[in-house]
Amino acid sequence: MKFSCHSDQFQKALSIVDKAISTRSSVNVLEYVFLNVKENKLTLIGNDLEIGIKHSIPVDAMDQEGEILVKSKTILSIMGRLQNHPVTIETVDNILKIKSEKVDFEILGLSTNDYPQFPKVNEGYRFPIKIEELKDLIKKTIFSVSFDETKQFLNGILIKNEPEHLSFISTDGFRLSLKQKKCEGIENEFSAIVPFKAMNEVSKIIQTLPQEESIHINISEKQVAFFIGETTFLSRLIEGQFPDYRQVMPSESVHSYSIPRKLLLDASERAQIIAAESNNVVRFNFFDNELVIKSNANALGEFKEGIDVNRESGEGDSKIAFNVKLILDAIKNLDDEDLVMKFSSEVSPCVIQPKNESDYTYIIMPIRTNDFQETGA
Amino acid sequence: MKFSCHSDQFQKALSIVDKAISTRSSVNVLEYVFLNVKENKLTLIGNDLEIGIKHSIPVDAMDQEGEILVKSKTILSIMGRLQNHPVTIETVDNILKIKSEKVDFEILGLSTNDYPQFPKVNEGYRFPIKIEELKDLIKKTIFSVSFDETKQFLNGILIKNEPEHLSFISTDGFRLSLKQKKCEGIENEFSAIVPFKAMNEVSKIIQTLPQEESIHINISEKQVAFFIGETTFLSRLIEGQFPDYRQVMPSESVHSYSIPRKLLLDASERAQIIAAESNNVVRFNFFDNELVIKSNANALGEFKEGIDVNRESGEGDSKIAFNVKLILDAIKNLDDEDLVMKFSSEVSPCVIQPKNESDYTYIIMPIRTNDFQETGA
Repeated sequence: MKFSCHSDQFQKALSIVDKAISTRSSVNVLEYVFLNVKENKLTLIGNDLEIGIKHSIPVDAMDQEGEILVKSKTILSIMGRLQNHPVTIETVDNILKIKSEKVDFEILGLSTNDYPQFPKVNEGYRFPIKIEELKDLIKKTIFSVSFDETKQFLNGILIKNEPEHLSFISTDGFRLSLKQKKCEGIENEFSAIVPFKAMNEVSKIIQTLPQEESIHINISEKQVAFFIGETTFLSRLIEGQFPDYRQVMPSESVHSYSIPRKLLLDASERAQIIAAESNNVVRFNFFDNELVIKSNANALGEFKEGIDVNRESGEGDSKIAFNVKLILDAIKNLDDEDLVMKFSSEVSPCVIQPKNESDYTYIIMPIRTNDFQETGA
Repeated sequence: MKFSCHSDQFQKALSIVDKAISTRSSVNVLEYVFLNVKENKLTLIGNDLEIGIKHSIPVDAMDQEGEILVKSKTILSIMGRLQNHPVTIETVDNILKIKSEKVDFEILGLSTNDYPQFPKVNEGYRFPIKIEELKDLIKKTIFSVSFDETKQFLNGILIKNEPEHLSFISTDGFRLSLKQKKCEGIENEFSAIVPFKAMNEVSKIIQTLPQEESIHINISEKQVAFFIGETTFLSRLIEGQFPDYRQVMPSESVHSYSIPRKLLLDASERAQIIAAESNNVVRFNFFDNELVIKSNANALGEFKEGIDVNRESGEGDSKIAFNVKLILDAIKNLDDEDLVMKFSSEVSPCVIQPKNESDYTYIIMPIRTNDFQETGA
């Protein structure tokens, strides 16, 4: 191969496919990026056998077609150190020559013979989605994915369609996140568990793209494909049965309070300073128009803070205790000014919803604290 | 004690003395900060028995004098989460009560009885120094301090006076940094090895202070004191004999070249990508008005880059090899547009100096590379 391009273009393209390149694989070849030049186009492929990413960029001048494997880490470092200069790239046998002004690199590569074939995109259910919507769907559900390897079916986000809705759902058994978006004309039913890593990398790739543009998702039996401009992103799906979220979701709640999100965030972060020394337990005591948040740790001390809230339904005082980390995970990822907290008793699931975003639901299991019950604090 | 202040004032003061507070000491009390309120002034002390820092701030309203020990980490977190609100602080027995609007913390403290006494500042040689000068002296020498525990006398920066000069010197046996500044009226001779940690923390404390202001340094037999505004910073000195830098410094050099610093920095960083895989060796080949930098690694490939330089003395081609990390450490910390490299042969020490900063000298020992000698590359 022989072609020219700008180092920053090349680096940007590499950094996309690099997300699918192993850093320490038992299969040596997976640490390499596949480069192919043809018809004035450079195609880069990374493939760790879980995720495969193919990305293409136009090149400035192509003298000769060809392909090679080179260590992704090395080429990324080199392009990052060439300060957006024009570079000429050429292969001679299995050596990749990179020239830029007075700079000369000769990097040992490998023949592409042993590189795994890039998976075929299977026939499946294909639909468009706006980048800003996909970002929001991922952001509001990815943090409650389980990393418990004995429950692989929880190690990803469930994507499924329901009448007129596309839903993203995740749970680790202690809390559940559900974000829906309206979409019309969904015909086939589908349901797919996309691994955490794939979702996380997709969200990084779309981060800097124009938010108004759309990408396409293709879901087939064992594979999900994201078509993002010149990038094809493939991932295997997780097999297994995802729990039915409707069984966890309380149909109605006795108590319901509207709480300013920022005040709840600040108070919870303060409560965590103490709670961190006692299993992260924080206690919420609701009165008519006040929520008092408490935490205490034997060797450290106590915390107490009051927040003005609005009771929306129910009567009398109520109390409930949580792992403060699970509270913080959700409210940090929301933007609404006010949240609604709904629960029936201190042992039943609590629902947190942004006041003006009814298509997002966070369900959190309370902690039963003996101490809490005894002192009635 | 009972007083009021703003949380950010308190946090700022805590973050200064926290540098002398142990995070995991076998002596529990060293994880605590000493707080004393007297005459409308809050004094905070941190002391890890190596370094002691005392800092004072005025308080807004003092109702009652007193002192207590509290966990520094906890109070720092609390103050950091109070978003610059006014706080009231009060002790009841050994409990520190922190109140701010609707926030209430009660933190278990300790009696100050068991806290080590803050060391007395010994009579010594005391002199003023401008903050910007001290920052520069530390910045240009601290990176070549040795961390070899078997050579404790190299684990710090030597501060000494010589006729009309104050010198900061450090070496790890592979390179040596010497930065001098003119100062008049030095009478007594002194020479003190200040531990890395003390120098590093002092440089952080002075980072954000007005650069034109001066602080005072007091050097006595076993102790150095820095008087920085309302902060007293004490450290023990390292005992032992620091090597005489004049013995390492070549009196004259055969070859001398002027090199644009930024070009040398960029080329060295590129060379390092390859050199990192072969003991960081980079080869410098000097011709009349060109420096060619090379590195190579068997399993990875080769690098070569030319830089236009100016020969200042000497004749014929010359070559020398270095550990690229040692080159980068120095040129990253300098600002001059041009550097001068001087050496006599590929086995003699090489001097690097900023062209317009003759009071800074960096001496680096070359690497003898067999391969280098054989191929003459």
